This record gives sequence, C-alpha cells and structure tokens, in this order.
Amino acid sequence: MHSRFQSYQTDSGKLDRAALDNELEALARRYKDVRHRSLDLCQPLQIEDFGVQPMADASPPKWHLAHITWFFETFLLQTYAANYASYNPAFEHLFNSYYNGVGNPFPRLKRGSLSRPTVAEIYAYRSNIDEALLTLIDEGEFGDQAASEIAQILELGLHHEQQHQELLLTDIKYNLGHNPLFPKYHETLHKSDQESSTPLCMDPPGPLREIAFSDHNPGLVDIGAVSDFAFDNEYPRHKSFLGPFGIANRLVSNGEYLQFMHDGGYQRADLWLAQGWAALQENPRHRPLYWHQTGHGGWSEYRMDGLHPLELDAPVTHVSGYEAMAYASWAGARLPTEFEWEWAASGKALAGNFADSNRFHPMVCDAANEQFFGDVWEWTSSAYGPYPGYKPLEGVLGEYNGKFMSSQLVLRGGSCVTDSSHIRASYRNFFYPADSWQFSGIRLAVDL
Amino acid sequence: MHSRFQSYQTDSGKLDRAALDNELEALARRYKDVRHRSLDLCQPLQIEDFGVQPMADASPPKWHLAHITWFFETFLLQTYAANYASYNPAFEHLFNSYYNGVGNPFPRLKRGSLSRPTVAEIYAYRSNIDEALLTLIDEGEFGDQAASEIAQILELGLHHEQQHQELLLTDIKYNLGHNPLFPKYHETLHKSDQESSTPLCMDPPGPLREIAFSDHNPGLVDIGAVSDFAFDNEYPRHKSFLGPFGIANRLVSNGEYLQFMHDGGYQRADLWLAQGWAALQENPRHRPLYWHQTGHGGWSEYRMDGLHPLELDAPVTHVSGYEAMAYASWAGARLPTEFEWEWAASGKALAGNFADSNRFHPMVCDAANEQFFGDVWEWTSSAYGPYPGYKPLEGVLGEYNGKFMSSQLVLRGGSCVTDSSHIRASYRNFFYPADSWQFSGIRLAVDL
Amino acid sequence: MHSRFQSYQTDSGKLDRAALDNELEALARRYKDVRHRSLDLCQPLQIEDFGVQPMADASPPKWHLAHITWFFETFLLQTYAANYASYNPAFEHLFNSYYNGVGNPFPRLKRGSLSRPTVAEIYAYRSNIDEALLTLIDEGEFGDQAASEIAQILELGLHHEQQHQELLLTDIKYNLGHNPLFPKYHETLHKSDQESSTPLCMDPPGPLREIAFSDHNPGLVDIGAVSDFAFDNEYPRHKSFLGPFGIANRLVSNGEYLQFMHDGGYQRADLWLAQGWAALQENPRHRPLYWHQTGHGGWSEYRMDGLHPLELDAPVTHVSGYEAMAYASWAGARLPTEFEWEWAASGKALAGNFADSNRFHPMVCDAANEQFFGDVWEWTSSAYGPYPGYKPLEGVLGEYNGKFMSSQLVLRGGSCVTDSSHIRASYRNFFYPADSWQFSGIRLAVDL
Amino acid sequence: MHSRFQSYQTDSGKLDRAALDNELEALARRYKDVRHRSLDLCQPLQIEDFGVQPMADASPPKWHLAHITWFFETFLLQTYAANYASYNPAFEHLFNSYYNGVGNPFPRLKRGSLSRPTVAEIYAYRSNIDEALLTLIDEGEFGDQAASEIAQILELGLHHEQQHQELLLTDIKYNLGHNPLFPKYHETLHKSDQESSTPLCMDPPGPLREIAFSDHNPGLVDIGAVSDFAFDNEYPRHKSFLGPFGIANRLVSNGEYLQFMHDGGYQRADLWLAQGWAALQENPRHRPLYWHQTGHGGWSEYRMDGLHPLELDAPVTHVSGYEAMAYASWAGARLPTEFEWEWAASGKALAGNFADSNRFHPMVCDAANEQFFGDVWEWTSSAYGPYPGYKPLEGVLGEYNGKFMSSQLVLRGGSCVTDSSHIRASYRNFFYPADSWQFSGIRLAVDL
Repeated sequence: MHSRFQSYQTDSGKLDRAALDNELEALARRYKDVRHRSLDLCQPLQIEDFGVQPMADASPPKWHLAHITWFFETFLLQTYAANYASYNPAFEHLFNSYYNGVGNPFPRLKRGSLSRPTVAEIYAYRSNIDEALLTLIDEGEFGDQAASEIAQILELGLHHEQQHQELLLTDIKYNLGHNPLFPKYHETLHKSDQESSTPLCMDPPGPLREIAFSDHNPGLVDIGAVSDFAFDNEYPRHKSFLGPFGIANRLVSNGEYLQFMHDGGYQRADLWLAQGWAALQENPRHRPLYWHQTGHGGWSEYRMDGLHPLELDAPVTHVSGYEAMAYASWAGARLPTEFEWEWAASGKALAGNFADSNRFHPMVCDAANEQFFGDVWEWTSSAYGPYPGYKPLEGVLGEYNGKFMSSQLVLRGGSCVTDSSHIRASYRNFFYPADSWQFSGIRLAVDL
Repeated sequence: MHSRFQSYQTDSGKLDRAALDNELEALARRYKDVRHRSLDLCQPLQIEDFGVQPMADASPPKWHLAHITWFFETFLLQTYAANYASYNPAFEHLFNSYYNGVGNPFPRLKRGSLSRPTVAEIYAYRSNIDEALLTLIDEGEFGDQAASEIAQILELGLHHEQQHQELLLTDIKYNLGHNPLFPKYHETLHKSDQESSTPLCMDPPGPLREIAFSDHNPGLVDIGAVSDFAFDNEYPRHKSFLGPFGIANRLVSNGEYLQFMHDGGYQRADLWLAQGWAALQENPRHRPLYWHQTGHGGWSEYRMDGLHPLELDAPVTHVSGYEAMAYASWAGARLPTEFEWEWAASGKALAGNFADSNRFHPMVCDAANEQFFGDVWEWTSSAYGPYPGYKPLEGVLGEYNGKFMSSQLVLRGGSCVTDSSHIRASYRNFFYPADSWQFSGIRLAVDL
Repeated sequence: MHSRFQSYQTDSGKLDRAALDNELEALARRYKDVRHRSLDLCQPLQIEDFGVQPMADASPPKWHLAHITWFFETFLLQTYAANYASYNPAFEHLFNSYYNGVGNPFPRLKRGSLSRPTVAEIYAYRSNIDEALLTLIDEGEFGDQAASEIAQILELGLHHEQQHQELLLTDIKYNLGHNPLFPKYHETLHKSDQESSTPLCMDPPGPLREIAFSDHNPGLVDIGAVSDFAFDNEYPRHKSFLGPFGIANRLVSNGEYLQFMHDGGYQRADLWLAQGWAALQENPRHRPLYWHQTGHGGWSEYRMDGLHPLELDAPVTHVSGYEAMAYASWAGARLPTEFEWEWAASGKALAGNFADSNRFHPMVCDAANEQFFGDVWEWTSSAYGPYPGYKPLEGVLGEYNGKFMSSQLVLRGGSCVTDSSHIRASYRNFFYPADSWQFSGIRLAVDL
Repeated sequence: MHSRFQSYQTDSGKLDRAALDNELEALARRYKDVRHRSLDLCQPLQIEDFGVQPMADASPPKWHLAHITWFFETFLLQTYAANYASYNPAFEHLFNSYYNGVGNPFPRLKRGSLSRPTVAEIYAYRSNIDEALLTLIDEGEFGDQAASEIAQILELGLHHEQQHQELLLTDIKYNLGHNPLFPKYHETLHKSDQESSTPLCMDPPGPLREIAFSDHNPGLVDIGAVSDFAFDNEYPRHKSFLGPFGIANRLVSNGEYLQFMHDGGYQRADLWLAQGWAALQENPRHRPLYWHQTGHGGWSEYRMDGLHPLELDAPVTHVSGYEAMAYASWAGARLPTEFEWEWAASGKALAGNFADSNRFHPMVCDAANEQFFGDVWEWTSSAYGPYPGYKPLEGVLGEYNGKFMSSQLVLRGGSCVTDSSHIRASYRNFFYPADSWQFSGIRLAVDL
C-alpha cells in the first residue's frame, strides 16, 4: 500500500496514466474472481450455518460476506461514486467491524444474534455492490489522484476479502467442529485431486524425516516488504541484525506433540509462560483444539471432512501460542523470531498446501524441500509491533492494522486455508497467544 | 396431573376403561391440533430466525420445536413403545432442557450455536415422532396402568407444548425486537379480525376508565386446582386465610407508567427492592423493555407487528417484577398476592385477549367487565413456592416444576401470547423478578 | 417498633410522660451494656483482625464497630441534638451500610480495603458518640413527640447493635477459619462455665435421642409479633391457616449429615433445587463450610476455639439453605414453613445455647425439652416477604428491613452467637439460600 | 547473574577464593543495609496499613516484608544451611509469590484476607531469618561452588528486596490514595532536604524548557547488560541495528498532558490502540490515576505527602501504557523503543530524583542535563521479550523473569521510588499496558 502505485510515475514525475488504467482493469478482473471465490467457499453450507457465532471470535459466515462487501461500499463507492446513496443505512452500522472512524460498529459479540438480514438479502447486497463497483471502475472518470487511490483501495479490499475467506473457513470449522453431530463441511478429497494441486507431497507419504536444523548466520539483513503488494505492517523495509540460529526443516508433527502430552507437558508449569499456565488452570484443555480421545485411548481429529483417526505424521495444528512455546521448551528448543523466519523463508518457493487445493487440512509430506509456506501458520516468539518508521495508512484505513499492535504474537507462512496469492515471506499474521482456532502450528528454532 | 384420571375409576374401584380409551382418542385429536399450532406459529419465520439465541433465556425457535418433540419421544415412546429405537441418540442430549434424570442436558447458553440439525431435519424429526406417537396411541395394546399413565403424560405433554408456544413467541419477539432493523413478525391485524376474536374490546376504544379497587374480605378460603387439568404446582387445593383487600379493576396503562417515569421513578431508591435497585445501577434501562424514545421526546414501542407509536391507554407490558413493585410503591399501592389474585379472579370469565386471536399484543379495552385473563401476565408479590402438602410428579417428571421453587415470583392470568385453552384461575406462572422479556404487566392492590 | 410506645398513652389520650422518661432511663442503662458487649467481643482480636474482609459478606470488625456507632449518630444525634456537628463528615459516607436515603454508601465490597480510620480512631469515635448520646438522653429537653421517637430509635439501635454483634462473630469466624493457620478466637470453655450458662445440656451428654415428630393441627392461628419489641417485619400480627404437620424434636446432627454425604447426597441432582444444583456444579464444596477432611478419612471442624475432631452428635451447622433442603429431601422430610415453626415454638421456653455463654458453638444436648432456640438458626422453606398489611418504618429507617424482601429465605430461632435478649418466637432472620457463613442448621418437618 | 562471579576466576582457571570471600563479606554488609531500609520504609505505617490489598496487584506491605524474607529462607537457608528447619511450614505456602517449582503459591488475590500472621510475627520472622542468614555467611564452610552460588543468590535476593521496596511504596500509595480520607504517608519535604539530595533540580524551579529532540543515528550497536550485576533478562549483550531517531530532552509534563485532555484525547479512538480504547470504554477514567478534579474546574493530585494542587511543570505520572501511546500519537510523536532509550541513556549520569531522597514524587526540574533516570519509569513501545540467546536462571529461580515475557511492555530508567543503587541503563522493568499504579510517565521520540 505504501509505494506500489508510485511505480506508475514516469521519470518526468508525471503519472503513467495508461499503465494505471491497465492496472485498474486487471484489478477489476481479479475482483470478479476473488468475490466469486467467497461464494464458492459458502456453497457447501446450509442456510442455518450462515448465522451462528459459537464464540466471540468466530463470526457468522453471512456477517463475513456482508462485511467484506461493506468494505468496498464504504471505502470506494461512498467516496468515489458520484451521488452514491447508501444501499441500506443500517448496514453501515451492522457490518462495520471495528472502524471507529466511520461510525459506531455493531457489538462484535452479538453478530450471531442477528437473524436478519437473511442470507438471501446479503447475497443481494453483494450483487448490488459488485455491479455498482464494476460500473464505477469501468465508467468512472477520475483524475490521476482519485484513480491512484481507487487502485490502491481496490487492491487492499481484495486482500481484505482473502483474509476473510480464511476466517470464513476457520469459523465454519469452529462451528461444525463444536457441534456434537460433527457434520462435515466437505467430502474427503481423493488422491487424484491431491497430486495435481500439492506437488510437494507424496501419496502415500514416505516415512517422516527427522527434524534437522539448518544453520544461519545472517548478521545485518533487510527485513520487510519487497513484493508488489504488502500491508502497511510489513513496511518499511529496514535493517535488522540477526545472530546465528538454526531453524527446523519441517513442522512439528502430531506424533511428536503426543509425546509432549504423554511426558506431562500440560502438567509442568516450568514449560509455560505465566499467562499460559494461568489460562490452562482456568480452562484445562490438555490437547490441541480439535483432538478427541477415542474409547480405546487413541485420538481422533475433527477436520473439514469430518472426524478421522489422528494422522501421527501430519503437522500438529490448532495449538495456541502458549502451547507452541511450552512444546518448544519441552523439546529443548524455542520458536523462531519473525525475522529469523523471514530470513530463512526468503529464498524458498511459494509452494505448499494452500486453500487453492480445497483440501483445508495440513498434509503429511516428505519432500526434500524445506517447505515454509502453507499447511499451518507458524507461531513466532515475536510480539506484534510496528517496524521502525511504521506509518499506518492515511485516514480511516489507518485502523486496518496498527491499532492491534499490543499483546499479540506474529505468525508467518500461511496455511492450508490461505490462498496462495495471499502469502509472501514478509506477510505478518497476528493472533493472541491464547488463540487456537486458526490453523496454527509449530516450527522449532535453536540458538547456535 | 394428580387426580384427573382417577375419575375413570368406577364405584366398584375398577377402572372405567372405555371412558379412558375415549379420553385417549380425544387427546390424540387434540395432539394433532396443538402440534399443528406450533408449526403455524413458525410459518412467518425465515430459516435464519429459527436458530438465534440473542440472550440466554431466549432459546432458538428450532430448539423449542425439537425439545417439545423430544418430550413426547422421551416420556412416551421410549417408555411405552415396544422395541422403540431412538430417532437420533444425539438428540437425547441436544434437546433435553433440564432433566438431569434422563442424562446430561446440552448447555442452555449454547443452544444458539448449533447450526445443525437444520430446520428441515427438525421438521422431519417432528413428523416422525408424530407418526410414531399416533400409531402408539391408535394401535398400542396397554394394560390399565399403562393406559392411564399414557393419558396423563400425553395431556401434560400438550400443555408443555403450549407453554413452549408462548415462549416461542416471546423469544421470537426478543430476537426481532433487538435487531436494529426491527423486522415485523406479522402484519397488523385489521378491525374485522379484532372484533370477532376479542369481544371484550371496542374499536376504537372509549376513554380509559379510572382505576377503581373492588373490595374483598374473604377470610378462610380454598386455593388451588379445581379444573380438569392442572400442573402439580397448583396442587393440593388447600385452605388459606385472606384478610380484607382491594384489587384494581384494570391493568396499569402505558400512560400511567410514563407518569411514574416522568416523576423520577427510576431515580428514587426508596421505591425499589434492594436487588432491583442494584440491578438497575448495573444495567440502567429506564423504560419497559421494548420502548424506544423517538426524536421528539415521544415514545414508540416494538410489537410483533413492528415499531409503532406508544398507545398510552394500552396496558404496560414487558416490565420486570422489580419495575412492577417500584411502580406500585410510587402509586401508593402494592401488588396483589397470588392468593388474592386467585380469589378475585375465580368468578371471572376466561375471556380476554389471548394468543388465539393472533394479535400478540395487549389491547386498549373499555369493557365494564373486570377482565383478569389475557393481555399480560400479572406480577404478584408472592414468591414461587410449594403449596402445603405439595408433591412433585413421580419419577423424572418430578423435575417439571418443583425444582424451580426458589427466588422466583408468581405471575397470574395469562397473556396475549397464551392460548385460551391453557389458562385458569389457579395457573401459576413464575419468573425471576428481573425478567422482562415475557408479556408481564401490573395490576395494583391495596390494603383495606 | 410499631406500637410499643403507644402504651405510654393514658386513658385520657395523653402521654404518660413520667413512664416514658423512666423507659428512656432504662434504655440508657441498657445502652451502656450493649455497647460494652461489642467491645468485649473484640477483646480477643489482634489489630490486624479488625480490618480484613475475606469475602463480600464478611465485613471487617472495625467496620461493624463504626457502622453501629454511625447508626446512633445519624438517626439520633444528627436529628435530635441541638447544633450537633458531624464527628467526621467522611464517616457519613464510609460507615453508611445501605441507606440510600442518607447519602451514598461506600461500596460494600471495598470495606476491607480501608486501612484508615485506624482501630484506635474508631474506638475514639465510639466513645465520643457514646458520651454525646448519653448526654442527649440525660440532659436533652424534648417534647412528647421527640421523646417518644428517641425512645423508639434508641431501642431499635440497640437491637441493631446486637444484630451486628452476631455478624461480628460470624465474620471473625469466617476470617480466622479461612486462614491456613487456623488461629483460635478463644480458648475452649471448661465444664464449669458450661453448666452455669446452658442448663439444658448435660456434660458429658447422654446418647443422642432419636428424632421424633410432634404432631400439630393448628387450623386458623395468629402469627407475628406479640412481644414488647419486635422489628417491623414481624408486624402486623395476622391470621394464617395451618394444616396438620409434624416437626422434629431436635436438630439434625453432624453424624446424620455425614450419612447424607456418604449416601451420595451431593451427587444426586434430584434432591436439589435447580439453583442449588447449579451453584454446586460451579463451586463444588461437598461438605458444610467449616468441615475439613483429615488424613485418615475422618473429619474435623473449625470452631471459634480452633480445629477439633467433628462431634457427631452435635447439630450440623454452616449449611446453606440449598443443603438444608437437599438433606430434608434425602431424609424423606421437608423444612418447616416459618409459620409452622413459630406455632410450634411459641409455647417453648426462651432457653438454649446463646451467645451469653460465650461458647459460640452448637452443643450436644440430651434434654427432654424440645429446645427451639439457640445453637443454630433453622432454615425454613418460607421465602422472606411482607406480612399482610406490612408497613415499613417511616422515613429513612424504612430501608431497615423491607427492601430485602426478595430471593431470601426466613430462618428462625437464634443461634449460639445470638444474644438471648435478642430472640423471640416471632423473630425473622433472612439470608440467601446459598449462604452458609451464618450458624445455620436444619430442623425437619413432615406432612401429616 | 550470568557471569559476574566468573570474574573471580584466575587466569589459571581456578577460583580466586579470597576475592569471593571478600565479596561475600561485602554482600553481608549490604544485606544489613537493604534489609533495614525495608523496615525504614514501613516506619510511617499504622498496623492497619500493613494488611490491606485494595486491588489484586497492590499486595499488603506485610506480605511484601514476609515474601522477601521467604526468598532468602527458601533459596539460601533451605539449600545451604545444614540441618535447617523451616521457620514455619505454613509460610512456605503463604509467602511464595509465584514459584510453582517450590510448591503451591497462596492465591495472589487473597493476600489481603490474611489477618495472621500479625505484623509483629512477621517482624519476628524477619529477625530470625536475618540472624540465621548472617550466621550462615559468617560461619558456614562452603566449597567453591557453593560459595559462588550463595554469593550470586544473595546478590539477587538484595535486588529482589529492592524491587519490593519500590512495590511497597507504590502499593502503600494505592491504598492511602484510594481511601476517601486521603491520609498522608509522610510530611512534605522542605527545601533544605531537597537541595542536598537531588542536585539536578532547582528550588524554585525555573520555567520549563521546551521539549527538544536530540538526534541519533546509531546503526549497529550493542545492547544489554554491561554492569557488575544485571538480571537475566538484560542478557546476553547483543547487537541490534538502530536507524536514525530523535528523543526528547525531558519528560512530558502535567500541563502538557492536560492539553491532551482538553483537546479531547480521551474521546478520540484514532489515538488509541484497540485494546486501550476498549479498556477505556469499560472503565472510563479520563485522567491520570491520582488526579482529582477540584470544585473550580482545577486539578489536584494525590502524592505520598497528601492531596496538593497539580504542579503543571512536574512530569506527568501514573499513566498507563495506553495513555502514554495515545498522548504520543496526539503529540505527533511516538514512544521510544527500549533500545533507542538504552542507546540514548547509556552515556548519561545515573543522577536523578530517586527513592534515596525520600521524596517519592517526581519533581519540576530545569537542569541543562537531559536526565534519563529517576522521577518516573518511562514507557517504551517495546514488548517485553527475551533477548537473542536469552537463558533463564537455572532451577526454580528460572521463574524469576522469563515466564512473564508475554503481553507486557518494557519501561526504562527508574523512578522516584527506585533506589539509585538499583538502576542502570540496561535495566528492563515491565508492566501490562493497562497498568498505571506504578510511577510511570512519558518521554517522546520521533522518526528522523
């Protein structure tokens, strides 16, 4: 968001308007795809599934669908479309997530108590806004400044929608996975699907390789956004000094996590941060979020395709940051910092098990490749804060990222519910260390 | 429930089986009507409306529909149908309300987080149980004891379903009335509908008559169930001494309640019970539940037919017991005890504005008749407790009423969402004094 | 409080002022005794013990000492002493318990956070007010009306102080009994002390007699205050109809309560009120408040004289109303209503194990006498509410009793920490059914 | 703690035992001073002041006194004194703060509910442990390893006691400052006291100089412990890259903070972190913790010497991290990172207004010197986390610092209640961003 559209400046300092107009056209095409994907993801849902909010953080699917539409209406149509009349003034309140700058958001905790507007009404809202927005881009006549702003906000809006596509999936999983009926979101994918979409993994997978730590001694490095698009929190690119460290060549597996459990990991206060230990005493869940003990002492795991026996070699997922750190302590290691992770990942291919494959669960892999992307978000030890010289976006969009920079940890790498076009080495995701409803897992690091 | 089916005993002490079988047939006919009415009440709903639980007490409509079906399945089919297999074992847990004696009820607070089973699946559950139950009654061959028990439980189950029909309406109102869109449940009824169904009221109504207190000096009286059917908590009929008292000839109106508000009723601690005052400080709602201040200092009220200007002459409703008592103190009066109310109401016709009229809101009336039934439940000053010699029902059904006999107040008379076949002078409804989401109002009494 | 001082009216309707003045003198003498007793009760305390509030309900001793002084200052000196200047305006706020009519009470929950005023400063406050009050009575020149009011408020104030003497002891016990060091309040009394003060009990006691139920069939009776002094909530004396019942000839013993525990009483939902069961799940204390399991599976009990092995034959105490009702259900009985209790107790001597004996614990007794007073307050099944025709005291003192008439149960009979001059058959104590820090126990009743 | 006592290693790798013994002697002398200071600080207290805990974080003074004694008993006497018997086994539980490794700490929230042990008993505990400890050091015969460990733990224990001396003062202030009587802890110091102890400040102070930002462009620097003693969290010293920044030459003043308030700082969501804004809505305190509005719209501030008119030129204190950040945003600046602060402070003299002067309040200063130490702890924007290569202390003492490394912010520089011997440029204090009961203030920084 910071500098991308400055690239349309010519040497003479004038805007290359033709290039910008091309870009706008390309964004409009991408708009249709991204918007369509949101509806695709909701296709398996029953109408009843669109409305529930089984915990504060897991918003109803229909709220997500409306909110991401509200974003385009509020930040583009309301600002740039001449004589634009609000689609429904009540929606400005209902579907504002947290932007105090554009009014008074409806209380987050009560999103699940709104039976109206109905799903059909929200789909109609989407179509209407889509039409208005595409018309705006297609037919609007803007000066250079407005055209550049629209391009920026449109691109941001698409990434925003992709973020909510991921939340849509994690929130649907939370809902269905906490229903005693354990309904499936989709059927299990077959081998043929798998091979084409996630080339890094074998089927059947070979034996899990040992964790090995690759050595790094970076010294003074550059950290932060290099890609075409990046969020404000990835800027500015800046120098940081990294001493020697080792980082694991694969994620921690379910089987390894089970050893931690069998070794009393949930009973040993010395492995835990004080807040994590306190949270554990208050809410004694002694297993990853979707694991269930079976009758015979074994374990099953709820996945988007239903309850299945736990795959020991697959990466552990749905662990909190506290669990990740306790595991790392137990293993005699630690979590990487976000900068160590970024340094180690920077050279790697953006390949992996992403949402694109419609698998929506981490996979057992045995590639020689040290895959840093996809499968699960990787907890880092880094508190989420501003980079040196960080500037939030201007205006109300300044609330997008910056105001959450307290008490959270950074996660890196994307997951099996992240779209591959929505990830990069510099991408900083962030959640509270107690959170576990995201596809979050563990990669170890060590001091050298 | 206590003695009704003993009436089928002949003089010789033997059961009049033919009479009992006739009664069973009649109950089967009534079963179809009552069960159909539940679905009728849900007819105006969107699928989305079936699932929400906007507060702990307001269960989702589909939960009500499933629970009342579960009641028949659990207490009749599971016990009396030979080789009966549970429709769905998970439902035994999900739709058990509070019967510890038949397993572990699903947490009340999370009823709104269950997107599955879907509405269609619950309708199928209903049809299936209906068919099995009617077959059981029609074709089952029972001994005298079983036949008598089935008749009793069937009758209880129908009254149970009628109780939930009322809750269905109050919970739907809570949902829609707390949605910023204020959707209507139904259209406003026209004059023609009104006249036929609620003959006590004129349209347009005449001026509201003054409140007058009729004098009573009962002395030693009999209190409790006299009707064919009554709940266990209305038994046994017993003697009580009532000194002289006066009771108002009509309900307190919205206009009168507004005077209380204008006179600082919500600011004067001396008018309130200590718990009520404390609750008010913590949650400062200074108006009946569904009142809203309009721009010009006036008031509107949310009703099942949407937001409308407040009708000053209509009975005030959706006030808590604390509000009712504070109002009574302010008015220099008090609430009646439940026995005073029962005594005064005993001679009165069971006429009034009930759910039968599909109006679902209290009406402005100007009848000479002192109407004690319908419109709103009337808070009494009586704590809900057991009558002398009270015995809960036998077995698990003993959890039906008795275990709630603490910290609640008795309300009497039925409301505009009560079915007229479900009310009687001895009927004891009970809610916590802080509750206001029921159609609850105020009738004053005085010492003489 | 209602009519007592009308007895000084002569036949001619004039006040017998000489008799009233005599009464005032007598009250002044009693004032010194009662006020002295409060300090006597605090004599064993360390200064540190005066300040703590280990739970919201257990106020610090120094707060009690100040509050009962504040009562006399506020309701007598501030009203009737000419040119009286407040001792310390901050105290008007700090030591007001719950009288909204005389300002804004300091938050109850924070009483234990006030290290100042110190104990010495509160003792000085007491002396100062005592002197001013005795001077007022001794030297003040009042008209008939004022003299009569002063006598009434003075008498109320002394009973108020006696109520707080009991709370002083229960709150000290709560504090010391929840300290892991289990400090004693006093040394165990010797036999010689016991015999003189509590003649109903033998030492050593004989074997516990069986519980027997005496039969009563009262019919229409008079209930309520008959004594010289009674609180407003005991008025007016009124008629009530009582059917036949039986009431136990002694309290439930520790040994009997232990059988209830061994029989799974705390695990059987069917024995409990719904609120009691819910409270038990949330806070699973499966024993009376001060019982502790010893190493060998036995039980000890914390008493004011320290931790001792549980005396099986002594009355069980510190049980909640929920526990009392669950026990009664288990025993196939019920609690008496408050009117049954009053009727049964009315003929009994006001003898028993009271605070006067400085024993402060219920005793094993084996008297032929069916002792209804002392030892432990007896839970009844009656909700605390107003008697027919109840009128609170006039003015601010109207907040004394009436505003607590919701959600509480009546207890009767006084306890081992009640002064014998502060109890009578019509006395109504009241606590929430979840409360157990008072000396509360169980007497059974049955239907006949 | 990491390497300090390695300095007693000679070139040949052997321990210089004579030097270590000298050091132990010096530590024993310092022990007496530090221990005495704790009692000195309690000298102005009434016995009542020793016991209260007006909020969870503000432990009772007597608890502090006992806990810091427990530290020496547990980590030195119990480990190194032959045949040592616990002073009182109950104290091991009662005065353990948070060391899960040595048993089960008494619940923090209930520290204020313990009236026993009394203050006198805790003083006796202190004397007893002091004597045993000094005897141990004086007469114990230890091998090299044990001697070295004892020296390390003793030194740590003294710094631990100094930390609690600061908490003692902040907790006493919280107690007295929240009592409606606003009692003083001490009398206001006179000019003569001031001049000698805090040479940087003038009396009367000159006009406040303008805030100016000194420019820095450090590049790659070394951060972390360089001093004789440092806590584990200041290790290891490591490289970090710091870009150009400016840092203010003085603290933000009360007058400047007042401008922020007058400019609507507490009403503008855009200035606040999301968590800070949410906390503000829930608990709307719109001023620093000890400020009070006076009748005439002015402000007074509670200080250890009582309520005084707010000094506009004195540094603002008792602001939360959220308030500090909101102020900085409003001022168009930001908080420094902890590394920027350390870099800027490194060359500065350790002079300032410390606890040594017994003033216990920040002062108006007008020195040319840019004083970075004393007066108030300075919030930084840095989350409290481990330095690269951080290792907690071995054994149970590993719980000292490391386990709190989540959700807190680092504060730097010490305050007017910090002892001057307990501060250094590398010192990292840490509190939650919502905390304001410490002497915490604001120094601004800017990007260059």
